[in-house]
Amino acid sequence: MASRLPTEPPRGMRDILPAEAELRDAAAETILAVYRRHGFRRIETPALESLSLLTGGGGGENEKLIFKVLKRGDKLDVAAAVTEADLADLGLRFDLTVPLARYYAQNHAKLPDPLRAVQLGPVWRAERPQRGRYRQFTQCDIDILGVASEIAEIELILATTEALGALGLEGLTVRINDRRLLTAMAAWCGFAPERHGSVFITLDKWDKLSPEEIRRELAEAGHPAPAIARMLDLYATAAPASLSAVQRQLGNPTAEGAFAALERILGAVGAAAAGRFRIDFDPTLVRGMGYYTGPIFEIRSSSFAAGSIAGGGRYDGMIGRMLGRAVPATGFSIGFERVVDILGRAEGGAGRDDKRLAFLFEDGAQELGGVLRAAQALRGQGYLVALERQTRSPGAQRAALEKQGYHGVATVGPDGRADVHWFADRALRRSGSRT
Amino acid sequence: MASRLPTEPPRGMRDILPAEAELRDAAAETILAVYRRHGFRRIETPALESLSLLTGGGGGENEKLIFKVLKRGDKLDVAAAVTEADLADLGLRFDLTVPLARYYAQNHAKLPDPLRAVQLGPVWRAERPQRGRYRQFTQCDIDILGVASEIAEIELILATTEALGALGLEGLTVRINDRRLLTAMAAWCGFAPERHGSVFITLDKWDKLSPEEIRRELAEAGHPAPAIARMLDLYATAAPASLSAVQRQLGNPTAEGAFAALERILGAVGAAAAGRFRIDFDPTLVRGMGYYTGPIFEIRSSSFAAGSIAGGGRYDGMIGRMLGRAVPATGFSIGFERVVDILGRAEGGAGRDDKRLAFLFEDGAQELGGVLRAAQALRGQGYLVALERQTRSPGAQRAALEKQGYHGVATVGPDGRADVHWFADRALRRSGSRT
Repeated sequence: MASRLPTEPPRGMRDILPAEAELRDAAAETILAVYRRHGFRRIETPALESLSLLTGGGGGENEKLIFKVLKRGDKLDVAAAVTEADLADLGLRFDLTVPLARYYAQNHAKLPDPLRAVQLGPVWRAERPQRGRYRQFTQCDIDILGVASEIAEIELILATTEALGALGLEGLTVRINDRRLLTAMAAWCGFAPERHGSVFITLDKWDKLSPEEIRRELAEAGHPAPAIARMLDLYATAAPASLSAVQRQLGNPTAEGAFAALERILGAVGAAAAGRFRIDFDPTLVRGMGYYTGPIFEIRSSSFAAGSIAGGGRYDGMIGRMLGRAVPATGFSIGFERVVDILGRAEGGAGRDDKRLAFLFEDGAQELGGVLRAAQALRGQGYLVALERQTRSPGAQRAALEKQGYHGVATVGPDGRADVHWFADRALRRSGSRT
Repeated sequence: MASRLPTEPPRGMRDILPAEAELRDAAAETILAVYRRHGFRRIETPALESLSLLTGGGGGENEKLIFKVLKRGDKLDVAAAVTEADLADLGLRFDLTVPLARYYAQNHAKLPDPLRAVQLGPVWRAERPQRGRYRQFTQCDIDILGVASEIAEIELILATTEALGALGLEGLTVRINDRRLLTAMAAWCGFAPERHGSVFITLDKWDKLSPEEIRRELAEAGHPAPAIARMLDLYATAAPASLSAVQRQLGNPTAEGAFAALERILGAVGAAAAGRFRIDFDPTLVRGMGYYTGPIFEIRSSSFAAGSIAGGGRYDGMIGRMLGRAVPATGFSIGFERVVDILGRAEGGAGRDDKRLAFLFEDGAQELGGVLRAAQALRGQGYLVALERQTRSPGAQRAALEKQGYHGVATVGPDGRADVHWFADRALRRSGSRT
């Protein structure tokens, strides 16, 4: 009668096998080491937050994708419940930015000022599962809270390009724009101020749609034809464009400081890049989140054509809503899953060059103490050593061990020390190519 | 009208500040490095599992403490819902063992055989919050699946004592017993087989209660007086006891193999310990989980008197319930939160001996390129370097930076290279103790 229990992970979530887990660990270590060198300090928040926080307006569309947690004990009255709000009080975080803002508001008195925070951890979104998109995925964010100057953006960009470079990602290009410039642009075109968000959603597709498709989408959204025409005209001449060309065209000398900010970031980062990566002004860059207030940026790699691998921007308004006083803030998020995916597909994408040995022994027939001592001595030399019971067919066993990721086998030699046989050595010897 | 958003973490959960986060990261790295050397391979499962799995019987009392996740979209009908089962389909994992069993059943064809798995991650239990006990906490488990021989227990114990030793925990003692021996003991005393669980719950308190209190608790639970008397008599002479003394007394020469298993583990581990730690047979050791089937063990440290810091045992029955064929399994779990707590309280419990520098600059007044280059050169030498804007009162700023965990400040020298001033140097110079 007893039916077997389900063994699949929940829909849209997945199990991570050892080879990928090791790749993920190695990537996380590499990224965190670079961020630590740049003075960022690791912090952690709980996976769960109150639903009132999560639905408080900082999450945009993501607020609709929250996994909500049932109230517990007396707080739950199933019979009397009418709406979801009667049933749930907590939710799994959908990003690391809303929890960071709460964390800072709660703990600022005990935190360094400014705070350079690095977070690495899972977030959850109940999206329709699709290839390469999961309902639990890892994000890696750095944020600088308490610095109004563009030095913060410069630090974020230099640290993140260095981290991505340390992972081996090639052909990095930073694209940068500014929300204030987008607003000045939309005002100059003549779009209604309260409808700028809709304009930006379409502008975000600039590199995917033709000008005619852009025009049609904006017209269908009800924007006035003269404004649409002006915008198409502006971007036809300005993209790709120099900052000064856009500045001349808009006739808005500061755009509330956006031009000076972009100029400083482009200058300092460009000089420090010294050819390791490119940084380009891109007036069509939008970045989705509504909370951005200043410079916005993303990074693409020639290793991955389909989209960006990191993105961020300044969000000076968010923390004030929780703390009651304004705190300037800017952040950069690496798409950890995408990066791991690229590394996994790259040749030589193995996590580490550890040497993994199977220490063969005859269980029961052999004095175990000698096996344990010899195996431990190998570990002391830096090898990864697992004990494996010897089978009756050594050839088949070695083939199986090699397939499982072992690089060689060891046994206790006559002198009590380990005899090591590397699989690669044997292959090389056999092919006669050993020098 | 807009009320400020809540900034406290959810009840029983907590924010982790930088110093503790760094300690946790360093502890995790140390433990994982030792386990890797012993051939364990990192795996990961999702935080959420189906409620049918979580409530399927492997979790004992923990099944009552599950954070349940509301169904989503059309699957949720609040008005028609009568019980929690109508509302929730997923839950946050309460341990790493039930998910591991599911993972193995699902992925065994792609996994090494035997599998040595190491997991490190958060689990969630809706317990009544109390000092030092949280509703989200981290566990670190190693498990060996596919090895029936006691070599598996020997590996678990040697690897875990080495990991705890590498963390600096002192005075480690392993206590070991066997579930089959507990059953043989309860049968010999004359307790009813279906009531053995209740006997073990009381026996588990052997080191906290007096014999008279043990007698009273067993009597109140309705156990027969002659069985209670026999048990008290047995343990009065046998605890602390040698294995052979218990074996003679019980008159059960094998206890289904328990004596041979314990003898082999005690012998091999005792020899390999070579004085680094103790291993003792303890016939009163119970371990709470009902799924254990063979040897059970835990580790205490003289650094922490109040309880064990790691525990585990053999659970040969659990995976078969999901896979449909029996797979021998044994595991060991480090109480990560407790270990971090001990390390944090210990003198010199800082996570790393990194050198953290604040690179002072005058924002706007100074050419930024030189600052960025000099700071990056220091990072290349292994220092952790953050940019900090110079204030008008250098003394107060240095004091504040030292309080925030910086070890010194740097500035650009006349030659374009960094001038570094260590706070400790200054203190030493001032006290005249510098050699």
